[in-house]
Amino acid sequence: METPWDHRYAQRTQRMGSSAVRELLKLTEKPDIISFGGGLPAPDVFPVEDFLAACERVLHEQGPQSLQYSTTEGYLPLREMIARHTRRYGMHITPDNILITSGSQQALDLIGKVFINRCDRILVEEPTYLGALQAWNAYGAEYVTIPMDEHGMITDRLEEIVRTGPKFIYVLPNFQNPTGVTLSEERRRKLIEIADRYGIPIIEDDPYGQLRYEGKHLPSVVVLDGQFRHNGETPFRGNVIYLSTFSKILAPGIRLAWVIAPQEVIYKLVQAKQGVDLHTATFNQMVAYEVSRGGFLDRHVWMIRRVYGERRDIMLDAMAEFFPPGVQWTHPEGGLFLWAIMPEGLSSPEVLKAAIEQKVAFVPGGPFYACGGGETTMRLNFSNATPEKLRLGIERLGNVIKAQMEAKGMLHAQPG
Amino acid sequence: METPWDHRYAQRTQRMGSSAVRELLKLTEKPDIISFGGGLPAPDVFPVEDFLAACERVLHEQGPQSLQYSTTEGYLPLREMIARHTRRYGMHITPDNILITSGSQQALDLIGKVFINRCDRILVEEPTYLGALQAWNAYGAEYVTIPMDEHGMITDRLEEIVRTGPKFIYVLPNFQNPTGVTLSEERRRKLIEIADRYGIPIIEDDPYGQLRYEGKHLPSVVVLDGQFRHNGETPFRGNVIYLSTFSKILAPGIRLAWVIAPQEVIYKLVQAKQGVDLHTATFNQMVAYEVSRGGFLDRHVWMIRRVYGERRDIMLDAMAEFFPPGVQWTHPEGGLFLWAIMPEGLSSPEVLKAAIEQKVAFVPGGPFYACGGGETTMRLNFSNATPEKLRLGIERLGNVIKAQMEAKGMLHAQPG
Repeated sequence: METPWDHRYAQRTQRMGSSAVRELLKLTEKPDIISFGGGLPAPDVFPVEDFLAACERVLHEQGPQSLQYSTTEGYLPLREMIARHTRRYGMHITPDNILITSGSQQALDLIGKVFINRCDRILVEEPTYLGALQAWNAYGAEYVTIPMDEHGMITDRLEEIVRTGPKFIYVLPNFQNPTGVTLSEERRRKLIEIADRYGIPIIEDDPYGQLRYEGKHLPSVVVLDGQFRHNGETPFRGNVIYLSTFSKILAPGIRLAWVIAPQEVIYKLVQAKQGVDLHTATFNQMVAYEVSRGGFLDRHVWMIRRVYGERRDIMLDAMAEFFPPGVQWTHPEGGLFLWAIMPEGLSSPEVLKAAIEQKVAFVPGGPFYACGGGETTMRLNFSNATPEKLRLGIERLGNVIKAQMEAKGMLHAQPG
Repeated sequence: METPWDHRYAQRTQRMGSSAVRELLKLTEKPDIISFGGGLPAPDVFPVEDFLAACERVLHEQGPQSLQYSTTEGYLPLREMIARHTRRYGMHITPDNILITSGSQQALDLIGKVFINRCDRILVEEPTYLGALQAWNAYGAEYVTIPMDEHGMITDRLEEIVRTGPKFIYVLPNFQNPTGVTLSEERRRKLIEIADRYGIPIIEDDPYGQLRYEGKHLPSVVVLDGQFRHNGETPFRGNVIYLSTFSKILAPGIRLAWVIAPQEVIYKLVQAKQGVDLHTATFNQMVAYEVSRGGFLDRHVWMIRRVYGERRDIMLDAMAEFFPPGVQWTHPEGGLFLWAIMPEGLSSPEVLKAAIEQKVAFVPGGPFYACGGGETTMRLNFSNATPEKLRLGIERLGNVIKAQMEAKGMLHAQPG
């Protein structure tokens, strides 16, 4: 249909392209496909009964208030709970340092709106979270990238890259999306030291920090930054904006996340949020508070860890059994994803096409590279599928990769 | 606290300023103030019990699905229900013409993101909805305005203004926010004719269309546009993007609204929405569908009309009784607001300051003018306060205005 809107799109729409992850989510709706595509929690860990009890309590006790407009900053008891939770790690913030957002994706969009001028350079890991690129492309961001290894961004390379003058550094230190890799404590300190020396602030995106299945908890970048040049208590220095979410520890379908930032930054983010959606749903904030309080979240996260840790092991075991030689992959200590790199000569979009015919799906890694690359990489989610489907899906995917390697004469070239 | 974020704000933050309406909402939280400020529904019309039953049904029958990620376009049964509702007015659209948004404010932001380049001119009514200006200022919009009288925008002036080449025309035809004025059917047709002649598309924002307390329903601009140059059925020509919301007919605290647009425009809006919040809360969409289906919304709107119509009458009667001569106001046939114009020489921000001391609040009209003006105007909400408080608040406000007029020698100049 031709309409007068056709030639009226803003220039930025050319940079907006649809997310491969989101398009893939549509595939996961077909029940016969085993999808390692999306970042979906396991439906069986959702605390449905607890939600029901919380809805009843909220509607009985504060019904009209829960259905009414509310303030942009977010429901105060929820912000107080998050502040208490954060103070457990020794960092002193108040509810005024917290903004409730409609998922972490909104926090990324608001940060873009408040900080990114066209052609500003953002320093991101290579690869990095696709959703951040998607949010910031709309504001005309450009990127400089820092390479990663199995301990996260290679901070030995950071100083030279910081000298290009990025507006901020964006880092996912725990079980990174997409690679599953964790930034070592030593490198966290190095990142903070260099950022401090050059006055470059940091965005720490931490959706999975609570979901660790082995090894010991590492202090978050925002906490280490507070300790920097301090002894004893941990003040909030404000150099790091910290993002986290209820999506992975409670449920993504309620779209609830939070930002921790200096009060002045919160004020600017609130102004921006007024223009984009007034406030996050009152009802969801009150229900999430009711579900979470009284220590429920701690107990619930403990259960999620057990389920996802088991699934991670099943996927890793299945990959060792079914993937052909020459494919490498990460061993994440937590989170939802692992990352596989196929030998040169294969193309993950081509492998995906063949995989879908065999009823298995994943996300090709290319879109996670801000400046191109990653043609042979793939992101695999291990939280959503059941153990049986995990194993079957990896077997199918292994066979698809093997077939493609054989077709290209790549397996015969190997002695094994 | 000085942080490295201080000098890193994007240029657009200078255009973002905080909304007077939102700041005033904070006042309404003090229980001793009678606020005519926000656009809050009456808490006593919220269908709390029906929400509870819907939450129970959704969580029992589709618990995990309701808490999971979902598609950006929105929950299909909800979009189908909206399409059926729209077809009652004779206009043939499908769910593919509908995007569910996190409140109408998000629809305005997405439209800005998809259509507005810096320095694009948008044609708006004078005054117009503040939230639209706030959303679009962030994209660098500029404005041309069309004056209004008691029948809405003065379409005799439209052609000369359309020749300035606006990107689109933004209109609130029913019980406009802020004036309460309704665009007459004759002028709706004139608007469509001129927009068609110059190829300028229209955004029709219709949050209150169902809330009419007197007079007969007027066909919406999008419906009249479909009939333009057609006989018989009403196709969707796509020249008009139509916005509406559940905020005023169900509850604003669930942040749920919708856009009707050509499929190509929906596709662009979906791409934009992926980057700003992935999707609107799954749970809220499923609960709103459960509450609304089976004819509930029609019955519920009938009840709201009765309550708000009575409150409008009480406010109008109280104004006639308590407001001093020289103040004029509109007689809205529906919606949530009326609009008062004080005599020249008064300043509504000054009146507000004095009013707050007397425990009554309203929104000064100035910020609703895209290009300045409106110093003596005020927006008064009649949906939120109880009948007793409505009368008492208007009495207080009348006294404040009288006192200010007396102090300026304005009342003595009048014979009565």
